Amino acid sequence: MEEITIKDIAKICGVGISTVSRAINNHPDINPETKEMIMRVIQENNYIPNNSARNLKRQDAKAIAVLVKGIDNSFFSAMIRVLEQEIKEKKYTMVLRHVDFAEDEVDVALKLVKEKRLRGIIFLGGYLLHSEEKLAQLHVPFILCTIGTGPVGYSRNTYSSVAVDDARESYKMVDYLCKSGHRDIAIICACETDASIGMLRLQGYKKALQDNGIPVKEELILPMKPDLEDYSLENGYEVTKEFLAKGTPCTAIYAISDILAIGAGKALSDAGYRVPEDISLAGFDGVEIGKYVIPALTTIKQPVDSMARETARILFEIISGREQHQHRIFEGELTIRESTRNL
Amino acid sequence: MEEITIKDIAKICGVGISTVSRAINNHPDINPETKEMIMRVIQENNYIPNNSARNLKRQDAKAIAVLVKGIDNSFFSAMIRVLEQEIKEKKYTMVLRHVDFAEDEVDVALKLVKEKRLRGIIFLGGYLLHSEEKLAQLHVPFILCTIGTGPVGYSRNTYSSVAVDDARESYKMVDYLCKSGHRDIAIICACETDASIGMLRLQGYKKALQDNGIPVKEELILPMKPDLEDYSLENGYEVTKEFLAKGTPCTAIYAISDILAIGAGKALSDAGYRVPEDISLAGFDGVEIGKYVIPALTTIKQPVDSMARETARILFEIISGREQHQHRIFEGELTIRESTRNL
Repeated sequence: MEEITIKDIAKICGVGISTVSRAINNHPDINPETKEMIMRVIQENNYIPNNSARNLKRQDAKAIAVLVKGIDNSFFSAMIRVLEQEIKEKKYTMVLRHVDFAEDEVDVALKLVKEKRLRGIIFLGGYLLHSEEKLAQLHVPFILCTIGTGPVGYSRNTYSSVAVDDARESYKMVDYLCKSGHRDIAIICACETDASIGMLRLQGYKKALQDNGIPVKEELILPMKPDLEDYSLENGYEVTKEFLAKGTPCTAIYAISDILAIGAGKALSDAGYRVPEDISLAGFDGVEIGKYVIPALTTIKQPVDSMARETARILFEIISGREQHQHRIFEGELTIRESTRNL
Repeated sequence: MEEITIKDIAKICGVGISTVSRAINNHPDINPETKEMIMRVIQENNYIPNNSARNLKRQDAKAIAVLVKGIDNSFFSAMIRVLEQEIKEKKYTMVLRHVDFAEDEVDVALKLVKEKRLRGIIFLGGYLLHSEEKLAQLHVPFILCTIGTGPVGYSRNTYSSVAVDDARESYKMVDYLCKSGHRDIAIICACETDASIGMLRLQGYKKALQDNGIPVKEELILPMKPDLEDYSLENGYEVTKEFLAKGTPCTAIYAISDILAIGAGKALSDAGYRVPEDISLAGFDGVEIGKYVIPALTTIKQPVDSMARETARILFEIISGREQHQHRIFEGELTIRESTRNL
């Protein structure tokens, strides 16, 4: 028997399709008698409204969770877009969760794992300092994306990772500034307890200074303010504003993210400094807006698209059982724009 | 086979439950050898710590889909953050899907509805020009958030909406520019076929000019380039670059989004124009970065947080059956910063 459609019902009833739809959906905007007639015809003809027909074969897609540490980061937004695309292509659903800095991302992950559809987890940003036991409870493959260090003491063949070499890329930037004649280079960095990219990028800064024969000065190391959102425009602004008020000599400011650098740029402008004439300014990440701020921002460009695609590729390979865990390091690109100059 | 419990593990190991728990949770207060033994037994028995009890009652959370039209929009990012929070609080999962400008968001929604967990849909941005029949197939409540016009000819008591009055807010901005002495005000707007906020913001522009006795000039209406991403930095940049090359007299540029305006600002700077000394520049939306660009951007601030919270509130009220569909209009705020001046 051919299946009866909503069209057929409408024909039999002598009404429009929308009227049938209204009847089915219990819409208030329909004459009660018409509705009754339609529902009777539907019953008589064993018509299964679309919805229930679908019910029979409805299936929940398997899911991949993406856990993002930190808020509103343009770098992650670009990454999530690509991840979403890749996950969709594999017919999986992406479950996106932002994790506040105060939250424990593994606890969040453990809660998500309760969803039986979950097949894998992508940790984006932040850092993982959890015991092997705790991570083992996840019971689904996971991959760390742009997380500097893996979990301390955790064997590297139980998880995968994709990142740039944050220490080396940071070294590249600071070495470039040194070679441009800068000696008093301030760094806007993570707080002391940071064990992730913040620590690595600071290491690269110190090593580049040392290799260029420049002593590291504590007063040029400017950690983000713990009471403000990490890696935010506001944090970059406030740290710089406070630093400038002290009058510590400095010819360049390097922020470990572009967003921090843009905040710093505004503080410089507000205090009457010209970039790069008075102070050079550099960031890290290569977010798109960096090209459009004035002056355009010198940065280390991370290959976001490739990194996101590789993250998804590795995770799906592991889910399918075809591959072992992997650790992929991508190369960043020193991108010199208008915000830095030779001294 | 019956599932192994923490009790069984304790029995096998000859220890108490609390000791097993300490081992699992990496508690320092446990003999390392005991811990190792317990962890081995756990592994051998495929015991799933902590989760196991939960396993039995594992349930997929009900889901709300958020469908975002367009790419990488900081305005939407801020909104999504709040929506995620609100959805999480109600113990629902957020399924996020970006919809390309070429994609049909209702088709995407129809596919998502196949997930039996789905209880509601939030359409973010874009516009809906679909037949009532097609939308009726969604069979779950939906709400339009920051979508200027509802579906044409669709009765307003079958969906909810949250938005600002785009025509009126746009009018505010252009009226302010006129009252500041500007007469040649260019607008970077949506393409002609736009039936959404693009159209409404253009209407507001035209009406404000008329009310100020200024004729609308076609050569000052600059639609985004259809071959570039809508509402992108690049689009604002390219449209402005092309416009400036023509030399059409103009003392102010108003872009219908902040991101377009920031792109425009870069094109102005590259062409040697100073903002606001030579040309005033204004945007729309009130994204955070607008405060940090140089000069800080004059804009219409949409109350993102309140709008997102209200969107979630209304949707959940409808899902729970406690309320009828609603249409909420929020007030925007003309926010004058550094990028505009009196002539």
